[in-house]
Amino acid sequence: MILIHLDKNSSIPLFQQIIDQLILMIEKGNLREGDKLPSTRAFSEKLGVNRTTICRAYDELWALGYTESKQGGYSTIRKRDRNVVLTPKLNADLFDWNSHVSVGYLQLESRMNQLKMDENLNSIDFRRLAPDKDCMPVELFRKCANQIMLDQGSTVFQYGDPAGYLPLRDSIAKQMQFHSVSVQTKEVLLTNGAQNALDLVFRMLLNPRDKIAIGMPGYAALIPLLKLYQADIIPITIKEDGLDLEELEKAMISENLKAVYTMPNFQNPTGISTSQTHREKILHLCERHSVPLLEDGFEEEMKYFGKNILPIKSMDSKGIVIYIGTFSKILFPGLRVGWIAAEKKVIEKLTRIKKAGELSGDQLNQAILNLFYEKGYFDQHVKKMHRVYRKRMQITHKALSRFIPVYVKYTKPQGGYTIWFEVPAEGKSEEDFMELLANKGVLVSPGSHFLTKASESVNFRISISCVNEEEIWTGIERIGLILKNE
Amino acid sequence: MILIHLDKNSSIPLFQQIIDQLILMIEKGNLREGDKLPSTRAFSEKLGVNRTTICRAYDELWALGYTESKQGGYSTIRKRDRNVVLTPKLNADLFDWNSHVSVGYLQLESRMNQLKMDENLNSIDFRRLAPDKDCMPVELFRKCANQIMLDQGSTVFQYGDPAGYLPLRDSIAKQMQFHSVSVQTKEVLLTNGAQNALDLVFRMLLNPRDKIAIGMPGYAALIPLLKLYQADIIPITIKEDGLDLEELEKAMISENLKAVYTMPNFQNPTGISTSQTHREKILHLCERHSVPLLEDGFEEEMKYFGKNILPIKSMDSKGIVIYIGTFSKILFPGLRVGWIAAEKKVIEKLTRIKKAGELSGDQLNQAILNLFYEKGYFDQHVKKMHRVYRKRMQITHKALSRFIPVYVKYTKPQGGYTIWFEVPAEGKSEEDFMELLANKGVLVSPGSHFLTKASESVNFRISISCVNEEEIWTGIERIGLILKNE
Repeated sequence: MILIHLDKNSSIPLFQQIIDQLILMIEKGNLREGDKLPSTRAFSEKLGVNRTTICRAYDELWALGYTESKQGGYSTIRKRDRNVVLTPKLNADLFDWNSHVSVGYLQLESRMNQLKMDENLNSIDFRRLAPDKDCMPVELFRKCANQIMLDQGSTVFQYGDPAGYLPLRDSIAKQMQFHSVSVQTKEVLLTNGAQNALDLVFRMLLNPRDKIAIGMPGYAALIPLLKLYQADIIPITIKEDGLDLEELEKAMISENLKAVYTMPNFQNPTGISTSQTHREKILHLCERHSVPLLEDGFEEEMKYFGKNILPIKSMDSKGIVIYIGTFSKILFPGLRVGWIAAEKKVIEKLTRIKKAGELSGDQLNQAILNLFYEKGYFDQHVKKMHRVYRKRMQITHKALSRFIPVYVKYTKPQGGYTIWFEVPAEGKSEEDFMELLANKGVLVSPGSHFLTKASESVNFRISISCVNEEEIWTGIERIGLILKNE
Repeated sequence: MILIHLDKNSSIPLFQQIIDQLILMIEKGNLREGDKLPSTRAFSEKLGVNRTTICRAYDELWALGYTESKQGGYSTIRKRDRNVVLTPKLNADLFDWNSHVSVGYLQLESRMNQLKMDENLNSIDFRRLAPDKDCMPVELFRKCANQIMLDQGSTVFQYGDPAGYLPLRDSIAKQMQFHSVSVQTKEVLLTNGAQNALDLVFRMLLNPRDKIAIGMPGYAALIPLLKLYQADIIPITIKEDGLDLEELEKAMISENLKAVYTMPNFQNPTGISTSQTHREKILHLCERHSVPLLEDGFEEEMKYFGKNILPIKSMDSKGIVIYIGTFSKILFPGLRVGWIAAEKKVIEKLTRIKKAGELSGDQLNQAILNLFYEKGYFDQHVKKMHRVYRKRMQITHKALSRFIPVYVKYTKPQGGYTIWFEVPAEGKSEEDFMELLANKGVLVSPGSHFLTKASESVNFRISISCVNEEEIWTGIERIGLILKNE
């Protein structure tokens, strides 16, 4: 018997009140592993609320790792390794930090515990999404580093403009012009990678409970970050050409969206690229409904097959698009240099936020990277990456059509690094399936990392960024075997 | 005639409602430059609210740059260069970003506009607070950079632990042990400088309208950051030995503080160091009232006179202290490496936040810095800095007692870089005084940057970090002349 008290006059939404109270019962042990939650229909009648409110609460509980969704539609309490929110087992003498944390932090933590990775060095690892170690131009970078320190001396070690090292902002503006985006140097802000760029933009835009539409499945690390902002994620289905436009427009009309986030190239995790026409339609929707559009230009440089498609930002005449770029997925992930290209007024605002949180950018890395760019090493490197990954993706496509059974759906990316699988569940859970794969020596990224709602199928992502051609072939062969024997 | 409508049932505090409405009137032009605000007594009677509510609102308006406080106690509307919040003069075609920003951002922007600096290359510049360019060991750092890239190759360019490069965390734990702080490697998190450390801690602790006690005058860049969090700053007077303990305890009893922030060495801006006994008392207060203590270990290494005083963290048996350190004020400001030392559970929480916002630390810089430390170059550098700055501070003390008239109060720091002045106002405003100094070729940091309330005297800070002995002598001589002719 589950007792929930709802306060319809509270500023806390009903679904959130339900979540909070259910979590408390789980944490206190009043609800235990295996306990069934009422059906959404029964529960909605009992509480006198709309059934979608209950569905929403159940989805959220699942996303927080508190429940499992079983076939037949009911939810049960999951076995959990440890308590997420309330852990009152601190040494009595020590300060109890758990009762001193912010609401945003608690929301972040609940989502983050899900995202742990086991390491297994002997497996074929399709999880990593970063340029291959063997492709990194370390020697050229080292030479640039020397030259910068010799030429600039202590100048490059001073506090710098919080918007970043000016010559690199200039180089990036030029690089974006190659992609037909017309931005000036002052419309570029340097960040500590793309994740920091997202963080700055959210700080500028979001109040708690603001709504943001993102494609689902979607970029895994976006979800905990948005939890930290207590933002409300409105999931939009990713179809064969990207965001489902009908769903998006409906959300714009009914939800008072604060922003739309999209990753039009080789979307992470699906690898799907959005066509030029589709991009234009997204932009027009945002313009019509006055909703800021965040374009994550993820893997912009990794178009190694077919025709070049231009960024949405290239069509943005009203300055409604904030473009986010990074060097982490093509050059050095550990260097932490990304950027935001947006209207000057937006860059000014974001620079204030950057300054408030960090005072100054990292001048040294930015200056070295700029010299690397100016010497033409970046272009050279992009060409090399295309050669390497074009071959890898060709092998991937071949292995997929050879080894993967027909009843399994997977995407066929025209570039980038990732492929997304949809396997009919047939009673198997994602965890079971990951275990089968791991026992066979294959590590993939579980689909739930990229979702905010339970999926009817079992999903996973593979990334070919850190596996060679032989590993790709063998790895996909093993995946195929598991799928067939299942 | 000023019409204010107060909603006593609103969740927005009364002082905030008053501020919001006055700002709107100023922005709309209903209140203009030079207009007098009602006296606090008259206004409080008219609105039927406590007089302290009005005082609070007036202080805040002053801090936001909207008013001037004149002798005699009334406030007048200030001349302002541009509108802060509402600037509806965008091109009609462009997207109106100003109406899409978060509440936190608006609060940040209002405080940040105050903090602009004019550049004047021919003046003696006592404003910069960073190690002198001429003291930076660039050549040694370059050699370390080479060695790291040659030895580690692409390994150091991978995504790294979001808590930072493990060997540097280890070195920092050792360095803190020299200061009698017992922390393990896992109790150290690397950050992008101390400002990023503060940002991470605030993200963990603060909800909007949470209260935090900070010494006043206090670290200027802390104020806009706290505005971004919509935090409520409870100012505690800085006396000759640091935070006023009576005031602090009163605040702890009456205000439900979320944290206390303190900078016990060479406090910025006053240069005041807190004694060991005083440090102990602050710690005990925090323990007794269960309020987390943020110890900003600013310039920990810059104790070049007298006896070493230990960090508060060294006495922290309950894990209630979060210690923040940085290399920016002793080595390279542009390198952006700072750290947090705290109880392991706190570090785990902060690491989650760091990961959510940036995924990975900057491995390369951290690895180079670690080698620099391991080779003993850091110790060597600290000794050199002591030699240089001991002499500079001696000259400073000599020049101060020679040139500054007796009715002007100034601090006499035992290390660090900064000195704080209190000049009887006698009708002169801070702006007038800064202008007099600038005309004489001396640039100092205006006191209002370090305050949240109008001060009865004119205050300013000088920093001797980037001026040589001759400039110190001449600069202080000029300041003395202005003070005498005033």
